[in-house]
Amino acid sequence: MTNRKNRAWRLAARPTGAIRESDFRLAEEPMPSPKPGEALVRTIYLSLDPTNRIWMSDVDQYMPPVQIGDVMRGGTIGVVEESNDPNLKTGEIVQGMWGWQDYASVPAATLRNRIAVGDPTPLTAYMSVLGGTGLTAYFGLLELGQPKPGETVVVSAAAGAVGSIVGQIAKLKGCRVVGIAGSDEKCRWLMAELGFDAAINYRKENVLEALRQHCPNGIDVDFENVGGDILDAVLTLVNNYARVVLCGLISTYNADTQVPGPAKFANILMKRVKLQGFIVTDFLKRFPEGRAQLAEWVTAGKLKYQVDVVQGLENAPRAVGKLFTGENKGKLLVQVSEEPRR
Amino acid sequence: MTNRKNRAWRLAARPTGAIRESDFRLAEEPMPSPKPGEALVRTIYLSLDPTNRIWMSDVDQYMPPVQIGDVMRGGTIGVVEESNDPNLKTGEIVQGMWGWQDYASVPAATLRNRIAVGDPTPLTAYMSVLGGTGLTAYFGLLELGQPKPGETVVVSAAAGAVGSIVGQIAKLKGCRVVGIAGSDEKCRWLMAELGFDAAINYRKENVLEALRQHCPNGIDVDFENVGGDILDAVLTLVNNYARVVLCGLISTYNADTQVPGPAKFANILMKRVKLQGFIVTDFLKRFPEGRAQLAEWVTAGKLKYQVDVVQGLENAPRAVGKLFTGENKGKLLVQVSEEPRR
Repeated sequence: MTNRKNRAWRLAARPTGAIRESDFRLAEEPMPSPKPGEALVRTIYLSLDPTNRIWMSDVDQYMPPVQIGDVMRGGTIGVVEESNDPNLKTGEIVQGMWGWQDYASVPAATLRNRIAVGDPTPLTAYMSVLGGTGLTAYFGLLELGQPKPGETVVVSAAAGAVGSIVGQIAKLKGCRVVGIAGSDEKCRWLMAELGFDAAINYRKENVLEALRQHCPNGIDVDFENVGGDILDAVLTLVNNYARVVLCGLISTYNADTQVPGPAKFANILMKRVKLQGFIVTDFLKRFPEGRAQLAEWVTAGKLKYQVDVVQGLENAPRAVGKLFTGENKGKLLVQVSEEPRR
Repeated sequence: MTNRKNRAWRLAARPTGAIRESDFRLAEEPMPSPKPGEALVRTIYLSLDPTNRIWMSDVDQYMPPVQIGDVMRGGTIGVVEESNDPNLKTGEIVQGMWGWQDYASVPAATLRNRIAVGDPTPLTAYMSVLGGTGLTAYFGLLELGQPKPGETVVVSAAAGAVGSIVGQIAKLKGCRVVGIAGSDEKCRWLMAELGFDAAINYRKENVLEALRQHCPNGIDVDFENVGGDILDAVLTLVNNYARVVLCGLISTYNADTQVPGPAKFANILMKRVKLQGFIVTDFLKRFPEGRAQLAEWVTAGKLKYQVDVVQGLENAPRAVGKLFTGENKGKLLVQVSEEPRR
């Protein structure tokens, strides 16, 4: 094992505008060796998420930014190859945040959701609908959005990993659901496969007019992943006491300068809107509960999910850009190594 | 009585920028005569409030805008001179919203807070600390702001009718309170008389730097009356899970064009801020409870209030401008006629 190498994508530069491959540097490094209490894990899947772009910038944010020279942060699932912790066995499959690399030595205590032997759930489900993005949809919509049957819920980035789950949960709760996405094909998928009541292609349609048409009773809940003009259109049509779950502002992440808040900001006052920022880790203690409910819906065929798997750690920097150009549908993952037989 | 005239300020034009006297027209009109179920009331005090400026514009808002030709809307207290309702007696003192005029005929059912004979409370208290502005402070801060002992509360327009009460209630709840106001004299008043821990003169100081200095533990609650640069400074320094009670955006009311939301909007996401619009009438059913608590504090000397009384209905259009230039301190009222002996 000692002559094996580890590959790690390290942050080389803070991006200006869109992420470029040159913002990362692929380092070939000696295999890490686990200290007492640590485990050596081999990455199977790496999660790529819009929030990665935030972590790369030195701006106010909810975690410390990734520092130049650090391994790029990212959610991961992998298999334990060596363990110096008595509670963790070689061959166990675990989730963590060890980032963009083939192998890592990590404290066993930071590994979670240890997957039971014989569990038939696809690992890609644990990295999507049953992972951070599914839990974001679940807690963000239900706890902050508080949707009631008959209300109208709007979801932006609706064909994304979070948005596609939000819309389906809102349907399960008896709401009218309108999604906003970036292609006709995505819009068809949202309506035909996921049961959205309407979907708007923001690249072709006037979002404000389309929302007016598809939300005849106004908007009660907005699950906001995008910000910018789309949030403005929503704020124009909100009902009194509407809830805006502010989960992402992807339209602004690549901006070199600070982007002003929505032009329709005053409507938050006029309509007594509750607008609340949301980061899923605030609900960490309730993840098992959320995961159980999501798994029940998936098993019952009530909740569909889609993954978009890019092969090869070497392709991670190119793949992450898809999140900002609208190229991907569902949860974007990188497969770094083979799944073990389970 | 039939040869008496009524004076009424009617909206003549929608203002562009600051309110001008020419936006109103003083009409001399026949005395109104009450229909069955109505009462003729004589105005004693008229309330002038920043929100008056909103009502004058044809923009999205929480009530219908005042129409051109209508009597200008405003909170009022007055005495019943004639009653065609068996439950309302001549001589009773009542509050309502009959607007900028000497007399009005109003349905008895729209009159509230009928003041008991022998009640020693000054009528100006009912129009300030025990009226809409005091109740705005009470429900806005306590219900939306949820201040906890030891937390830091920032109040903008702190020397205003709402802000001055907000700060004192926050002190009663054990918070550190920092006010933002427009003169050294107001800042001294907030600290020396009302017990604020610090006060910032936004005309002389860099608000962001001053807030940084006076809020060493960050900001947990912002009672926002102003918006614009002041809200941006606050959002720069908010703690995780901070609450922003969006009660007013006075810095933007005179804008001819739509004012963008705060530049630091993204911090709402990063810090998981809850920002919520607030209009006091949403708590109408709980007004008696709020008024009772406020009255108890006033009687116990724990809550001070200040009124700024301008004499004469004819001066209302000039007086309302003081709210936007920072000339007044405390609650701005117009005395329209003499208080009756009580």
